[in-house]
Amino acid sequence: MSDRKLCMIPGPIEFHEDVLTAMSTPATSHVDPLFVPIFGESIEMIREVVVSKVAQPLILSGSGTLGWDQMVNVIEQGDEVLVLNTGYFGENFADCLKTYGAKITQLRAPVGSRPTLDEVTTAVKEKKYKMVTITQVDTSTGVLSDIKTLSLAIKALSPETLVVIDAVCAVGSEEIQFDAWKLDVLITGSQKGLGVPPGLSIVVLSEQAINIYESRKTPVAAYYSNWKKWLPIMKAYEARKPAYFATPAVQLIYALHTSLKQITSQPIEKRWAKHQEVAAKFRKAVKDLGLKQVAVTDDAAANGMTAVWLPEGLVAGQLVGSLAGKGVQIAGGILGDLSPKYFRVGHMGISVMERNHIDKVIKAMTESLAELGYKQ
Amino acid sequence: MSDRKLCMIPGPIEFHEDVLTAMSTPATSHVDPLFVPIFGESIEMIREVVVSKVAQPLILSGSGTLGWDQMVNVIEQGDEVLVLNTGYFGENFADCLKTYGAKITQLRAPVGSRPTLDEVTTAVKEKKYKMVTITQVDTSTGVLSDIKTLSLAIKALSPETLVVIDAVCAVGSEEIQFDAWKLDVLITGSQKGLGVPPGLSIVVLSEQAINIYESRKTPVAAYYSNWKKWLPIMKAYEARKPAYFATPAVQLIYALHTSLKQITSQPIEKRWAKHQEVAAKFRKAVKDLGLKQVAVTDDAAANGMTAVWLPEGLVAGQLVGSLAGKGVQIAGGILGDLSPKYFRVGHMGISVMERNHIDKVIKAMTESLAELGYKQ
Repeated sequence: MSDRKLCMIPGPIEFHEDVLTAMSTPATSHVDPLFVPIFGESIEMIREVVVSKVAQPLILSGSGTLGWDQMVNVIEQGDEVLVLNTGYFGENFADCLKTYGAKITQLRAPVGSRPTLDEVTTAVKEKKYKMVTITQVDTSTGVLSDIKTLSLAIKALSPETLVVIDAVCAVGSEEIQFDAWKLDVLITGSQKGLGVPPGLSIVVLSEQAINIYESRKTPVAAYYSNWKKWLPIMKAYEARKPAYFATPAVQLIYALHTSLKQITSQPIEKRWAKHQEVAAKFRKAVKDLGLKQVAVTDDAAANGMTAVWLPEGLVAGQLVGSLAGKGVQIAGGILGDLSPKYFRVGHMGISVMERNHIDKVIKAMTESLAELGYKQ
Repeated sequence: MSDRKLCMIPGPIEFHEDVLTAMSTPATSHVDPLFVPIFGESIEMIREVVVSKVAQPLILSGSGTLGWDQMVNVIEQGDEVLVLNTGYFGENFADCLKTYGAKITQLRAPVGSRPTLDEVTTAVKEKKYKMVTITQVDTSTGVLSDIKTLSLAIKALSPETLVVIDAVCAVGSEEIQFDAWKLDVLITGSQKGLGVPPGLSIVVLSEQAINIYESRKTPVAAYYSNWKKWLPIMKAYEARKPAYFATPAVQLIYALHTSLKQITSQPIEKRWAKHQEVAAKFRKAVKDLGLKQVAVTDDAAANGMTAVWLPEGLVAGQLVGSLAGKGVQIAGGILGDLSPKYFRVGHMGISVMERNHIDKVIKAMTESLAELGYKQ
């Protein structure tokens, strides 16, 4: 692994050595008394990280994308859904919901922007939506949505509407207050702010989300994603009892447990603040280099990643390649025709909390841009 | 981890140290040139392990159960499916297929038996089935189905019918010849005969399965399990090009690659033979103890696991607990009311190929039975 680069893409992120050691936990039965509390405590710590007292976390084996799929539990044919679209992931979440029969209305913001509070409240006043989805950080653009303001406004106008947030690139790096912000569903994965290798789909449900699921009129047209299968499993493990539907990813859950122990060992507010501080530092470096971030304002810029427009004449592949040569892995764009025109850097987890990796990225980026002929 | 027991349940199984080391591969981007060939070669080696030249493997992040889910790609509302039921997993596979609109006919064998060739051919002559499913080894009973004979007979009578095998507890421990046996879909997971921690759903598709998927009349009512998303990804990685739909479980795929390298380093026939030899040894020990296996004949007994009836007066929890005290983890039953009446032992992978763990199980089992008051 001598060619390994520092992984500074917006997920998977760098993993703590103890997390990697947990990944290599020797074979352990999924119903072993050693493992049961590991799973149970992980469920409890997820609740803690999203600042909830009562929500129900689900931890499934699968990619983060499987969280979108689980909306099949609360969507019935013809249900109206409002999708706030701030990039590639909003677009694809809408595609997923359509597959399960939702009628989609999209509020598409120009690239780098986000739908305004006015646009959202107007839309919610015009039509009764079963669900509004918001991507907290769209990994394609680095745009941060103001979940608190939007969710509270939506709930004030239409308490029955489910507020669903795609927080894949937000949990562990952005402020989230599940209960106080009246969220109903939060979707995330293991490989970003939670600092665990990819392979876990993590979803958190409000009582209201579970009620709507339980009172649906038509059966859930899904097997693996069906909450009927998973809710009893999660409740059992949290009660420190083994249960079986499908074999959990034991080693990944040991790794999740290790990372969550680290994360919850200090106040979560400190973690948010540190991510905000490092993000501001990176944005300043970008500005000092004469470059422009994709997010149109600092308010709308994520704290766990940044997307940056390339100078005229440079394409993403060149910069990504040059930084790779310096041992730093960053990512190109993923937004259709715009993809070659910008690059993305992740700043989450241990890279931010204890390793100061962003300084290496700034140094390598500055050198690479100069080597590629860029002059301010 | 000093309390860790030797994991001799029918999956997850014991993992090779090199596989565990691969699990702790430091953060690597899913599109990194280091990772792309690891994924591509894993796809190729899966094809090798199931003895196919042309089939299309899919490797997804998820439990083995997600393989059942993927049948949504070839099932349309009202499609007739014949399920050969040899235990809990056949029953649940039927449940999954029903969720996706299939009309199910079940051939249920008495516990420990399997539907006869006559029963199967009669059923296939009576009705045109879109699909026949067979559980190669039902992990609940340890019953081994004769896939070769059944598949060739079904295909001779009805070449259009898809033959789908649940080989979760068979790949890597039982003979499988995907092409020669004219299989269409094979479903497996990482944590049994493949010797990799749980978290990967692995499915192998024939050209005919892909054709039926491509010529379906109604859209696939699934997002995460949709082959439209995954087929281009697998083709790209096999062509050594990165691609993205959902983030793959990078570390698990490194582990899979390591285990597949070990498995394919010798002729696969040797692996089957060794599993047969160790299974026969364990069955003999069971018989010598005066106990009866669940499978009614040795022909119908799996080579990667064995289910054994307990003597009158003993329940599974007692024996499992006693062996746990001796550092050996075995499993109780999972078949409704019969669950406490039998136990299950896995004999797959390194435990069979190089570690001779079955001797430890036999010794501990013999001692435990004596301690629990069992006399022959």
